Amino acid sequence: MEGSSIMTRNITVIGAGSWGTSLSILLEANNHKVKVYSHSQEEVDEINSTRINSSKLPGIKISKNIFFTNVLEEALENSEIIVLVVPSQAIREVSKQINNILKRRNITIVCCSKGFENSTGKLLSEVIKEEIPECNICILTGPSHAEEVALNIPTAVVSASNDIDVAEEIQQIFMNEVFRVYTSTDVIGVEVAGAMKNIIALCAGISDGLGYGDNTKAALMTRGIAEISRLGVAMGAGHQTFLGLAGIGDLIVTCTSNHSRNRRAGMLIGKGLSLKDALEQVKMVVEGAEAAKVINDLSKKWNVEMPISTEAFLVLYENKSPREAVRDLMIREKKDE
Amino acid sequence: MEGSSIMTRNITVIGAGSWGTSLSILLEANNHKVKVYSHSQEEVDEINSTRINSSKLPGIKISKNIFFTNVLEEALENSEIIVLVVPSQAIREVSKQINNILKRRNITIVCCSKGFENSTGKLLSEVIKEEIPECNICILTGPSHAEEVALNIPTAVVSASNDIDVAEEIQQIFMNEVFRVYTSTDVIGVEVAGAMKNIIALCAGISDGLGYGDNTKAALMTRGIAEISRLGVAMGAGHQTFLGLAGIGDLIVTCTSNHSRNRRAGMLIGKGLSLKDALEQVKMVVEGAEAAKVINDLSKKWNVEMPISTEAFLVLYENKSPREAVRDLMIREKKDE
Repeated sequence: MEGSSIMTRNITVIGAGSWGTSLSILLEANNHKVKVYSHSQEEVDEINSTRINSSKLPGIKISKNIFFTNVLEEALENSEIIVLVVPSQAIREVSKQINNILKRRNITIVCCSKGFENSTGKLLSEVIKEEIPECNICILTGPSHAEEVALNIPTAVVSASNDIDVAEEIQQIFMNEVFRVYTSTDVIGVEVAGAMKNIIALCAGISDGLGYGDNTKAALMTRGIAEISRLGVAMGAGHQTFLGLAGIGDLIVTCTSNHSRNRRAGMLIGKGLSLKDALEQVKMVVEGAEAAKVINDLSKKWNVEMPISTEAFLVLYENKSPREAVRDLMIREKKDE
Repeated sequence: MEGSSIMTRNITVIGAGSWGTSLSILLEANNHKVKVYSHSQEEVDEINSTRINSSKLPGIKISKNIFFTNVLEEALENSEIIVLVVPSQAIREVSKQINNILKRRNITIVCCSKGFENSTGKLLSEVIKEEIPECNICILTGPSHAEEVALNIPTAVVSASNDIDVAEEIQQIFMNEVFRVYTSTDVIGVEVAGAMKNIIALCAGISDGLGYGDNTKAALMTRGIAEISRLGVAMGAGHQTFLGLAGIGDLIVTCTSNHSRNRRAGMLIGKGLSLKDALEQVKMVVEGAEAAKVINDLSKKWNVEMPISTEAFLVLYENKSPREAVRDLMIREKKDE
């Protein structure tokens, strides 16, 4: 388990947001050679001179052994493993750029982004595979606030790949005494869970905004994971995944955290704001609002009943009152669980 | 769904704690004839004169149509359905008393208590069945703070019985616009989940007491429900139940609420107090501490690996330091999920 027992690897982290920076620090602490690409020259300059990423991960010291650059070619030189931590809608473009530069073709890509590609409804692993056809893909996901990982607070995540050897290699590389990594071969399951949780977090926020209680939120989360699970299983995922860290684990963190943008936007909507006004006030990408559109299509495509996501869609895009939506969820026909 | 469409039933609620009182109010609002038994003459007198249960459910008005008594025979007269809401360790004695009084033998007992019988490790449904052999048993469980139900905050629970007709009858009787009831036939599953959640809530409290974060707590809850599920499935439960309201739903409420005694006791232990000192400070029954003993036996009996519960046992009863326990959980051999 000690860092010294892990073979040192050349790893490139693409994206210097809070999660990318935090994972870079973790990987360097595990004795890997880490290069980080940021598209912002300004950010690279700041980190190189202060060893702090003040806007994304304030107060956390970044080791001098981590190399930051805004030149993608430089970041990818000699790279054995690429960790993608960019916004989900940027995955295709970044993957395309990487594929144009790569010399070593059978590289492993670790995707730490979550969501669907909005324009196609595809999973991010599908998008990456289309753009970098020869790569191995691994998804790293689970309940993991970047700030807590940077502070060495105990965290557990999942490394998922269709190829169990790849999942185990990534487990080996990331795992240490405060960062426990489980493996999985259910790529579809962990990705569907990661993409869908934001809709439920938005709903949890709406419930809080309406002044409802812990009972309501727990019910939304539980019935939420049930419908996420139904969709995932229809798409080919294993049911068990949704009971795991990528499923209910990540959902818990997202729905109960005050830091979640999705939950915050939901609260504003619950208090009476329109989606447009809520988004303006949050001033950041609210993935749940985007995902709600795609989910509506997916639910139809896979013929899966998704009452919570459907009500979310109606509230967000068809001016249904949140209180009415909750009422309609409560008085649906009687069900077995 | 309106109250008027449900046939009026004669229902006896045994126990006038916060949950018993809250359910009585709910049942009366659903147009049933409700009698409540409390062992305390003083409590009965207070409610009869003020229509408030000031110590258990302060500020909530109790309808005059609900009859309170401390005479068990009176409470059970003409009863068609008995709702048991007493401490888990009192279930056997109360069931014995009920059986001695009952005239109508094929009565339905709705058990709203959670836990194992400590002296035998048995499920409460087993205990009730031993004492009232001819009854139908239904378990009503899920994420439901009594105070929120009394305030008509939207809540969803599960009604579970081996006999689906019984589960559906209870669903029909309790369900209304703010209290949604799902049915299940997995009695073992919902009972194991309800009994075990308190151990995990204690652990969640310990993690909070140690100053760990949302990541740690989400991981504990997720891996906690995984080991609860393993035990339940070994005992004959269905896996799906643990993903439901009785499983992860109830666990979420118990682990994140400030009202949970189990979580509060855990926090004190995390801050360095012994179990004995923590229990003295909480001044109430901490079911998780009791359950941890039984669970250790169950884990051996059913040959199920339960790392979190086992560490909880070591911390509570063998003076292991909580920080050491977390560390040992983090560095266990690498696993798939």
